[in-house]
Amino acid sequence: MDTTILEELILQWRRFPGVGRRTAERYAYALLEWPEEDLRILGQLIAELRQKTVFCPVCGALAPAADRCLYCHDPRRDRTTLCVLEHFSQIPLVEKSGSYRGLYHVLGGCLRPLEGKGPEALRMAPLLERLGQGEITEVILALNPDVEGEATAAYLSGELLAFGVRITRIASGVPAGADLAYADAAMMGLAISRRQAF
Amino acid sequence: MDTTILEELILQWRRFPGVGRRTAERYAYALLEWPEEDLRILGQLIAELRQKTVFCPVCGALAPAADRCLYCHDPRRDRTTLCVLEHFSQIPLVEKSGSYRGLYHVLGGCLRPLEGKGPEALRMAPLLERLGQGEITEVILALNPDVEGEATAAYLSGELLAFGVRITRIASGVPAGADLAYADAAMMGLAISRRQAF
Repeated sequence: MDTTILEELILQWRRFPGVGRRTAERYAYALLEWPEEDLRILGQLIAELRQKTVFCPVCGALAPAADRCLYCHDPRRDRTTLCVLEHFSQIPLVEKSGSYRGLYHVLGGCLRPLEGKGPEALRMAPLLERLGQGEITEVILALNPDVEGEATAAYLSGELLAFGVRITRIASGVPAGADLAYADAAMMGLAISRRQAF
Repeated sequence: MDTTILEELILQWRRFPGVGRRTAERYAYALLEWPEEDLRILGQLIAELRQKTVFCPVCGALAPAADRCLYCHDPRRDRTTLCVLEHFSQIPLVEKSGSYRGLYHVLGGCLRPLEGKGPEALRMAPLLERLGQGEITEVILALNPDVEGEATAAYLSGELLAFGVRITRIASGVPAGADLAYADAAMMGLAISRRQAF
């Protein structure tokens, strides 16, 4: 098979996470069965993805428009609590939990020294500005319970110290609701070192 | 998350074979990290996929242009042997085997009575026309060794009977080159019923 548009498309597919040659081929052949109109629609969605995706300039959440963030502009939300997350896609998970009614702040990343990602990769300026306004009394760090998440949490707690806010982090340990059989030694180690009074 | 372009894209991704909600989300978030120019290129590739994909009108193989099939127009190929396949994507596999130098015919499908796919879904007319020209002496059926493939092979052998050509099919049985440990009972059953003289 020489370099046809199909071959080019297969190469593009391979840029997606976890997609190897065979999967890329399957996707390309599946697309060939789509009606032309559907291909046009998908093509346009992709081409315009970045232009049409809007994030709230304050919290960094996905927004219908920059001046209409679903969280920052909702008067029913608790404006004294701020939940800090790495990625905007994690907000729906927190929302679905039904356990949080405060505001959000998307960092846009984590400290990853091995990949050369330092504090300048984080959305720090809008975070510090919000805290400077004095309304927030608690910052909940909802970062991954791994090395990068811990490093980021440590960095943030240092930066936020001056504001005198309560800094907490989401509980982590053995997976809530699951059998201990699903826990590995690292989880158990963390669960013991972070044990809570019964 | 309300219906943003990202959400629309996630729904589109789910139309691909084997893609669930989580994978669709991963793909969509991965795309958000691409440069705008790359999104434009991928979008255009998809939108133009069908217009720009050309199949040989004779054999049905993917072709650089309709009048330049890599197989039908190659004078070094054996024009007396025809290999019949279900899908154009299977040709490279036969080519890579290095065991075939004849021509191809892509059926474009198989008989699938349960899905309402009868003979009218197969590219029969160009196949019968080629055989009518009298140059072909052997037709090799390279169909899947499953129920649909067998039904299609039986149908084809009936249709081709009048042309007096030799009809063969690719060998199938326990997987060539693999340990018998990889064979299951159905493979072994087929291998025994199709046993060959040693």
